[in-house]
Amino acid sequence: MTIENDKLYLTGEEMTSLSQVALGKEKADLVILNACLVNVYTGEIQGNQSVAVRGKWIALVSEDVSDTIDQHTTVIDAQGKTLIPGLIDGHTHLSVWMSIYEYLRHIMKGGTTTIINEIMEPFPVCGCDGVDDLMASFQGQPIKIFSTAPAMGSISTAHQGMPNDIMEKLIKRDDIVGIGESYWQAVLQDHDSFLDNFESALKHGKTVEGHSAGARGKKLCAYAAMGISSCHEPVTMEETLERLRLGIYVMAREGSIRRDLDKISQIKDENVDLRRLILTTDGISPSDLIKKGYLEYPVQKAIDYGFSPVTAVQMATLNVAEHFGLDHLIGGIAPAKIADMVIIPDPEIIQAEAVISNGKIIAQDGELCVEPRKHRYKPKSLNSVNLPRKFKADDFKIDIKGDQAVKKVHVINMVTDLVTSEIVEEVNAVGDDIPCSANRNLLKIAAVERSYHPETLFTGLIKGFGLTSGAVACSAAWDCSSIVVVGADEADMAAAVNRINELQGGLVICRQQAVVDELALPVFGLISELPAEKLAARMASINHLLKDSGVGSADPVLSLITLTGAAIPYLRICEQGLVNLKTGSALPVSAMETD
Amino acid sequence: MTIENDKLYLTGEEMTSLSQVALGKEKADLVILNACLVNVYTGEIQGNQSVAVRGKWIALVSEDVSDTIDQHTTVIDAQGKTLIPGLIDGHTHLSVWMSIYEYLRHIMKGGTTTIINEIMEPFPVCGCDGVDDLMASFQGQPIKIFSTAPAMGSISTAHQGMPNDIMEKLIKRDDIVGIGESYWQAVLQDHDSFLDNFESALKHGKTVEGHSAGARGKKLCAYAAMGISSCHEPVTMEETLERLRLGIYVMAREGSIRRDLDKISQIKDENVDLRRLILTTDGISPSDLIKKGYLEYPVQKAIDYGFSPVTAVQMATLNVAEHFGLDHLIGGIAPAKIADMVIIPDPEIIQAEAVISNGKIIAQDGELCVEPRKHRYKPKSLNSVNLPRKFKADDFKIDIKGDQAVKKVHVINMVTDLVTSEIVEEVNAVGDDIPCSANRNLLKIAAVERSYHPETLFTGLIKGFGLTSGAVACSAAWDCSSIVVVGADEADMAAAVNRINELQGGLVICRQQAVVDELALPVFGLISELPAEKLAARMASINHLLKDSGVGSADPVLSLITLTGAAIPYLRICEQGLVNLKTGSALPVSAMETD
Repeated sequence: MTIENDKLYLTGEEMTSLSQVALGKEKADLVILNACLVNVYTGEIQGNQSVAVRGKWIALVSEDVSDTIDQHTTVIDAQGKTLIPGLIDGHTHLSVWMSIYEYLRHIMKGGTTTIINEIMEPFPVCGCDGVDDLMASFQGQPIKIFSTAPAMGSISTAHQGMPNDIMEKLIKRDDIVGIGESYWQAVLQDHDSFLDNFESALKHGKTVEGHSAGARGKKLCAYAAMGISSCHEPVTMEETLERLRLGIYVMAREGSIRRDLDKISQIKDENVDLRRLILTTDGISPSDLIKKGYLEYPVQKAIDYGFSPVTAVQMATLNVAEHFGLDHLIGGIAPAKIADMVIIPDPEIIQAEAVISNGKIIAQDGELCVEPRKHRYKPKSLNSVNLPRKFKADDFKIDIKGDQAVKKVHVINMVTDLVTSEIVEEVNAVGDDIPCSANRNLLKIAAVERSYHPETLFTGLIKGFGLTSGAVACSAAWDCSSIVVVGADEADMAAAVNRINELQGGLVICRQQAVVDELALPVFGLISELPAEKLAARMASINHLLKDSGVGSADPVLSLITLTGAAIPYLRICEQGLVNLKTGSALPVSAMETD
Repeated sequence: MTIENDKLYLTGEEMTSLSQVALGKEKADLVILNACLVNVYTGEIQGNQSVAVRGKWIALVSEDVSDTIDQHTTVIDAQGKTLIPGLIDGHTHLSVWMSIYEYLRHIMKGGTTTIINEIMEPFPVCGCDGVDDLMASFQGQPIKIFSTAPAMGSISTAHQGMPNDIMEKLIKRDDIVGIGESYWQAVLQDHDSFLDNFESALKHGKTVEGHSAGARGKKLCAYAAMGISSCHEPVTMEETLERLRLGIYVMAREGSIRRDLDKISQIKDENVDLRRLILTTDGISPSDLIKKGYLEYPVQKAIDYGFSPVTAVQMATLNVAEHFGLDHLIGGIAPAKIADMVIIPDPEIIQAEAVISNGKIIAQDGELCVEPRKHRYKPKSLNSVNLPRKFKADDFKIDIKGDQAVKKVHVINMVTDLVTSEIVEEVNAVGDDIPCSANRNLLKIAAVERSYHPETLFTGLIKGFGLTSGAVACSAAWDCSSIVVVGADEADMAAAVNRINELQGGLVICRQQAVVDELALPVFGLISELPAEKLAARMASINHLLKDSGVGSADPVLSLITLTGAAIPYLRICEQGLVNLKTGSALPVSAMETD
């Protein structure tokens, strides 16, 4: 099935055929017998329900489907088992670390049959061609993958944002259901960059996905007034409730970046209508995917945290489908809906024994019955790092004018593993540079633009990252087209960046100008070609090495690559300078004039 | 506001403006202060909520909107009052009896701000031009009127159904939200006539509205498998629950045709999710509209029958909006939603003290603040009865061949005021006719085609209608292009039909070939030009006269005009014969060969 080419609506021919199957005049391709059905429409668990499937559609849900069976019908006896609709992930990121083939090998086993994916990542590094290639990789897969068009908040202006005509074309695609997350502060600071695209999405009946981390009261309303209809950033019950009251769909995360369900689940005691509460991953790391699974994990956690199984399943099926206007196709088990279903042992145990997607059995007992499609990425996608020359230690000098030996400088301060603040430190200049000071935990950090103006780089200082020697660099930096590199030694920083150029993307650790560990990320400079299991092992090993080298974070690589992100508070770096997200303004390293 | 020309989406300019109002940087046009807000998203009643409106949109919902007020802002103090979203009627018929002007004069006062209207009625009698003219009458009105394109079940084949290209054009219109009701038996009997239009609706993201009166089990699934997503015909809790379980939106009626809420309301004790339960009128008679109001009446009844006020309001707002994919625009009170709101005294008293539609106050304390627009109907719409000659008593002979004096004939038998059955009676032929036999309560009934083949008529027999003398005829017969006439005297039948031709549509009672009462229906032959109050009085007077003349029905006119209907069981008449709806086949009067 390809989303782009396949019809995403019931044809007249299919209607006739389904109708005839329901009446027993034609036969089903697949039936599931005698299951407990989690009915997401009424919120009931109905005993002894059978389902007849013809092609990719459900024809009949009834206590008795025997009229629809002949010798060609595949019969699954689900006596004693529970049947739920295929799970729908409303917000995730499938263009980092792994190819879609590797993601799907694991996702499909767990019962997720539809994904709405952010496709922002390839845009800064490969432009619209990268987006096209990524979306092509989603087509012809055993499960449905829709996308949201990149709203592209970035702290860098290197990529000019998606041209309106391209955006309009994307928005009209059947496999684009909306515009992706747009960071609320960026939107309120710079309305004009977003308006045309937002209007275009709403005009074409698509959603505008939100990202309102920390917003509340009038600011939250001002953001919602832009037509935003979802947010996956609430971390407390109170934030969740405030958004639900404004009609905003809240996607509660339990993934690799955030685990918010514990706190959000307190809402179950508030006696409010939860039809607009959704469970999501917001992206899963290779190791979590292998160990914990995909969306079935948040659904299980929701039950563990006290939501009723029916509510938990609604939050990962019907509620998501309704948000994206897809509930005429998916999200429930009923005639004329796509046959996406999961057999689980019990309503409280979200563990797929059989997964049916588009009417086909794609996994059984943790084994795939159908292989996902391997995508051949375009040459441009495999050549996305375009540094024109070898970098040297001198390239990472911090050039501050003035005669004083003691300088006041702006420094990125690690507050948590991900959150940073802006601080001013006094440092000693050496010649025309401010060197690293590993004993003060004051390292150099640089962003090296790799796509648009690959001569451009910016070097600043970071406190609290923890590396005691060498440097670590990665081309999979968030929301931008830069390689991000942190080092205790400028020559190692240069060596790591140069090695990434050779690899056409990667994660590299250098010491004494030698590579001590590396991971190639040849697709867009973001995605590895390793199998998920090997990749997870390699990433664990790299993180282990970084921790051994003094990095205090629980996930050093994540801490590194988010330093260019446009959504995590609040002092970030790009090739143009340090950027304070609260104000949106770029800072020089020198704090001499500003303080 | 015109729906066709006005943008049904938030523009970039409006987003900016709303956002600025939310932040207090620009000012609101209208604010409502300190209300109890019925929050349909969370199902809560929130105290002390204020709402700021800019243009036709809501900018801010907050406990404090004082920043948005200046001397140009209209301020409504709603302290102690309750605020609910504008009501949405998901299924009604606004092309019978009254012009839209008259309907709206009354509807607007009660708090309904959006209507989804069936536009089937003008199609059989005036074709696509009639549909266009009717839809034009809905434009530029103070409230939003969407339509569903006519699926046109009819027992007559006089009008060939809407051509596919015209249907496609209709379906693409912004003010068409789906395909209107299609009677399930007709659809299952004759798939092929419906498939293209259903497919087209689904392809363009529109709904296919259902009409599954009495269907259950596999037949209901077979109908649902055609992509049908609503039904307004359930009359019991069990029928309601069966449809909800299939994901079908159920519209519970409390209008002039059916009052099903009492029985359906038992579902409140079933502990099921009611997000897909909707309240609707399915059409309101002039007298009910004046006496009971419009959609506010079913909402009040729902509360009276024990639904919580919040659930009752959800059933007439958010649930309807979600069904039609309009919930990004209407159905709740939140930023970026259209400012459709109603102030009521108390959550349990659905009595509009102020109605706000598209950001404007359109009614206060039962008085209109804004007039609906009077529509100038096109000449063709005003000349829809095209009988080419005067009819005579002889035209209503029942011509049965054969020599016997005693004939066995098929007869329409009135079982209830609306439901009929097929019976066979023995009658005495007189010459080449079977005369009326008022003392056996056996009258003549005829359907006289008035639009396509106006020479065509069919005369049969009806038992139990009750008229003791004269004849009654009406051009507003359901689902067809015929005048329906019932009489105890053939010359009176002819006189009544001829008078309707002179009037270009009407309801006429004749005795001894003189008109004893009449009501002109000059628009499409369906709609009066009288004010609602006068019309209600005239209809009451005509019904009174008919009851005095022996008709036993509670609403004799309704009993008359539904005799051509394609949806009420089960023996009906059209100009082509008697039609058994169970089989779809036409019967001759003679039962000699078939029995």
